[in-house]
Amino acid sequence: MDQNKPLILVVNDDGITAPGIKALISFVKNFGEIIVVAPDKAQSGMGHAITMNTPLRLNEFDSIEGVEAYSCSGTPVDCVKFGTKLIAKGRKVDLVVSGINHGLNSSINVIYSGTMAAAIEGNVEGASSVGFSIDNHSLDADFSACETIVKTIVQFLLEMPREKKVCLNVNIPKIPIEDIKGIKVCRQAKAYWDERLEERKDPFGADYYWLTGDFIYLDEGEDTDIWALRNNYVSVVPTQFDLTDYKVVNSLIDANEFN
Amino acid sequence: MDQNKPLILVVNDDGITAPGIKALISFVKNFGEIIVVAPDKAQSGMGHAITMNTPLRLNEFDSIEGVEAYSCSGTPVDCVKFGTKLIAKGRKVDLVVSGINHGLNSSINVIYSGTMAAAIEGNVEGASSVGFSIDNHSLDADFSACETIVKTIVQFLLEMPREKKVCLNVNIPKIPIEDIKGIKVCRQAKAYWDERLEERKDPFGADYYWLTGDFIYLDEGEDTDIWALRNNYVSVVPTQFDLTDYKVVNSLIDANEFN
Repeated sequence: MDQNKPLILVVNDDGITAPGIKALISFVKNFGEIIVVAPDKAQSGMGHAITMNTPLRLNEFDSIEGVEAYSCSGTPVDCVKFGTKLIAKGRKVDLVVSGINHGLNSSINVIYSGTMAAAIEGNVEGASSVGFSIDNHSLDADFSACETIVKTIVQFLLEMPREKKVCLNVNIPKIPIEDIKGIKVCRQAKAYWDERLEERKDPFGADYYWLTGDFIYLDEGEDTDIWALRNNYVSVVPTQFDLTDYKVVNSLIDANEFN
Repeated sequence: MDQNKPLILVVNDDGITAPGIKALISFVKNFGEIIVVAPDKAQSGMGHAITMNTPLRLNEFDSIEGVEAYSCSGTPVDCVKFGTKLIAKGRKVDLVVSGINHGLNSSINVIYSGTMAAAIEGNVEGASSVGFSIDNHSLDADFSACETIVKTIVQFLLEMPREKKVCLNVNIPKIPIEDIKGIKVCRQAKAYWDERLEERKDPFGADYYWLTGDFIYLDEGEDTDIWALRNNYVSVVPTQFDLTDYKVVNSLIDANEFN
């Protein structure tokens, strides 16, 4: 490894064979030394799951875009741990890039997203990090519009002072590059999924369910990621792993609750 | 169902047979109408995972503490969805209680925790919610010290105005009830796990790995959950699902980044 170049870990949640990670590797590979570890199967919706009760397997995969790559039997967060603790061979990872996810991770989707969990885990471990997602679930998605955006964000993160480590949730609208108005820093929009459990019968007469639902958007703000995407901007939401609700902390302490 | 009583959903991540959920049901069953949905197997470390690519099964389980209970093939968050969307039969769940987890979910553990993900999901869906955890991984853990604490917190949450919905992360130290100094509202302590991937060979000569590691505590504050637990308090951290890092939002906007 070239110790003078930044060390960049590339991960995703759609799995090692997804076109999104291939595109991401091609965009970042000239920015530093690259490590690639991705799940050996699709791991969408895995959130911040880690594998505790099962041993994990790691396999060398074909090189991707000329870069050595590994597949892992675990979750996206497990992949970050393999990358930072094992493949990095004691060197500190400077940047974790996750994606490019096939499908948006804006608004409340951030908490279910394996793509963003991997980015957040990178940040927990002291690296800057970013998750990229596009508004296109298709395996044939055109990632060319992402190239400039990915390079702009990666350049920005690598140039930040080392003591400032941030985690960014970047979502890219499904429009031609020339129609993108710019990159907008915003907050996570308020929304939730109104789920249904669609009931079916298997061939043996037993019930099973599919989890499906509608995205319910509750936010009128023009400073949100959803607003940005609907208005042809790339959304960038700085994301944190301190889940403390400080407003409620203060109100409970002021009210002397539980004392 | 008695429509005048609050509707309380009990979930966990240790699975439907865990002693912790039995204790929790016994403590909350007189506070309202109770729904129980828990995973059919242990789901520790599942974070906010949801099941998207596999159909889900729901089975009636034996009643627990006289309360009808269901087991689900999915994650803790899936269990919340079954409880609120299917078992509640159109009625709004007032409170989601999760646990009692065998093992603490203080500090950074909150982001890996299935117990807390279930509580957070309840809050996303508009209910107040709470996850309870004790500092004891044993299946023989003594939950009697939890009774007063669980009842105090549940009473508090049920008495809150309906428009104020909070999610609490409650951790209980491993000491006799008479040594507990009180309940302390606090913030999530800064910490991370320094993992190792312990390498072994299977009987066929192939490598596999166990994820293991040390908890690295980075916080000197006396307002944290870890401080509270080490000083014989029950810790209560109000927890939120808006992951936006507003400080970074403001600094990036002020610096005119990306514009």
